[in-house]
Amino acid sequence: MQVKDLGEFGLIAALMAGQQTSAGVVVGAGDDAAVVEITPGKLVVYTCDCMVENVHFVKTAQGSDVGFKLMMSNVSDIAAMGGQPRYAVVTVVAPHDTSVEWLQDVYKGIRECSEIYGVAIVGGDTSKGGQIMLNVTLIGEIDSHKAMLRKNALPGDIVAVTGSLGGSAAGLRVVLEKVPQSLPAAQAVLRKHYRPQAQVSAGLVLAKMGCVCANDISDGLASEAREIAHASGVAIELDAADIPIDKETHEVAQLCQEVSLEYALYGGEDYELVFCVPQETWQAVAHALPKARKVGIVKPGQGVHLRTKMGLSPLGQAYNHFS
Amino acid sequence: MQVKDLGEFGLIAALMAGQQTSAGVVVGAGDDAAVVEITPGKLVVYTCDCMVENVHFVKTAQGSDVGFKLMMSNVSDIAAMGGQPRYAVVTVVAPHDTSVEWLQDVYKGIRECSEIYGVAIVGGDTSKGGQIMLNVTLIGEIDSHKAMLRKNALPGDIVAVTGSLGGSAAGLRVVLEKVPQSLPAAQAVLRKHYRPQAQVSAGLVLAKMGCVCANDISDGLASEAREIAHASGVAIELDAADIPIDKETHEVAQLCQEVSLEYALYGGEDYELVFCVPQETWQAVAHALPKARKVGIVKPGQGVHLRTKMGLSPLGQAYNHFS
Repeated sequence: MQVKDLGEFGLIAALMAGQQTSAGVVVGAGDDAAVVEITPGKLVVYTCDCMVENVHFVKTAQGSDVGFKLMMSNVSDIAAMGGQPRYAVVTVVAPHDTSVEWLQDVYKGIRECSEIYGVAIVGGDTSKGGQIMLNVTLIGEIDSHKAMLRKNALPGDIVAVTGSLGGSAAGLRVVLEKVPQSLPAAQAVLRKHYRPQAQVSAGLVLAKMGCVCANDISDGLASEAREIAHASGVAIELDAADIPIDKETHEVAQLCQEVSLEYALYGGEDYELVFCVPQETWQAVAHALPKARKVGIVKPGQGVHLRTKMGLSPLGQAYNHFS
Repeated sequence: MQVKDLGEFGLIAALMAGQQTSAGVVVGAGDDAAVVEITPGKLVVYTCDCMVENVHFVKTAQGSDVGFKLMMSNVSDIAAMGGQPRYAVVTVVAPHDTSVEWLQDVYKGIRECSEIYGVAIVGGDTSKGGQIMLNVTLIGEIDSHKAMLRKNALPGDIVAVTGSLGGSAAGLRVVLEKVPQSLPAAQAVLRKHYRPQAQVSAGLVLAKMGCVCANDISDGLASEAREIAHASGVAIELDAADIPIDKETHEVAQLCQEVSLEYALYGGEDYELVFCVPQETWQAVAHALPKARKVGIVKPGQGVHLRTKMGLSPLGQAYNHFS
């Protein structure tokens, strides 16, 4: 069935079918706006992320994977602030002849991710357009004065990540048929690529432990570390040997004759957090988050530098829209 | 200058230049997410609206008019719930060769509208894409249990609007060069078309006076009344003679050999509110909102019916995306 067979209101009904009621939703989808309850004494954390056909996905992709990752990227932004995601609205722009089943599959993925993280979808907008564009806006809650910001890194801080990196980029190599899907390593990194996990629990733990600086790794560690260094007016030194990379990621990189470290630094979409904490806090954090790994240190200066066996060298640019 | 000359971060800087700080914004644009303060004891009201190139606007349109109307349509949805708009995030999808100046002009219009209604822009997302798509998500505040919903109309209620209708549709006729721009009437309706006013104050007054049913008139009175009738399980009878239409709108319709009543019923984008109140409340409402006019009555049954000199007849469908 195509979108034009249903019309606007039919499409909305098809996408919202199976929607559950959620605590805190006073008015959900179907009126001028949604009304939601936010806990008094908490701040509201607020983000949006879009995905565009032929930029972030192709129409032959599994809709549920597209939807899952779209919602995940928003959840991850809330996680990086130390927030609890709560309520989302979704904008769907699609050509007349878009398959309704495909869009319903996108919504299935959006809902799968929403259910994992306790997000309620409370509204949205639809429009025709020349290509598919999906936008999610997500609000969450955050304990007052606990937000983890990019600008708060201080010289001497430990730089750490919540888990292993590069898996999603390795998964993309499998999608691009550089490696046989049948290999166990390929299956492992495919899961990392299609079903990344936003680090909401880790973010809440970090915020509670007094961490005031974090970023989610959507564009690769190099790019996220650079954002922190730039916003904080500091330099970040990463140690190549300390960056956690799963053995399956190494295996795929080897089969592709590529360097797994580059997947970790430039690949993106891992949705782990990179954060900075004072040295005296690090042991407690490492105990609370067993998968967390120290990857570097904050220094006075600027830019991001990588320490390898060959010494220390500045890291290059990563992906950038419009460039 | 084109978007590709600036890159993603340059574009964001160009669009956010001149952004003011606003009360309640703890963290604005530039981190993973924004953090805003919402007054304890109030509910959050939450909406999004998008505009797509060649659907809602053409690239030769004045950017500031596009941006103004985009933000206005969101503000109007908050107004229709009886809320006070507060914080917005903006998604911009644009092709590589899009003029930066045009997008900055869009942002100028977004900001003009935001300043009128006290909205702070706190973040957003950008992506390349095959056509321009703009999405605004807006959150506002609403006194608990005061939301005005489409489903709350009751038989016997007065149906009223906050002001005159059809002016925006008349303005569109001027844009489409059906009428000379030099006429004073043309100038008046052009303002209605390019700079419609969301009825935030009226919405707050209505909510305070106990009105529990309203809708903003974005798609024409017929469509909005139908939404109320459908959601409330009632019939609405509109009286053609009572629908307020400015003399300039009549004049433009006459020059086009069209019927101004059709502009009011099907034109849309007037952004007045249509609302339902018990008969005993109507006098006080009319006193508090001098521009408000009774346009009909709620009856048991279903659908929307129009009373004219020829009697009562059912009203047809209005505009619908994808149809």
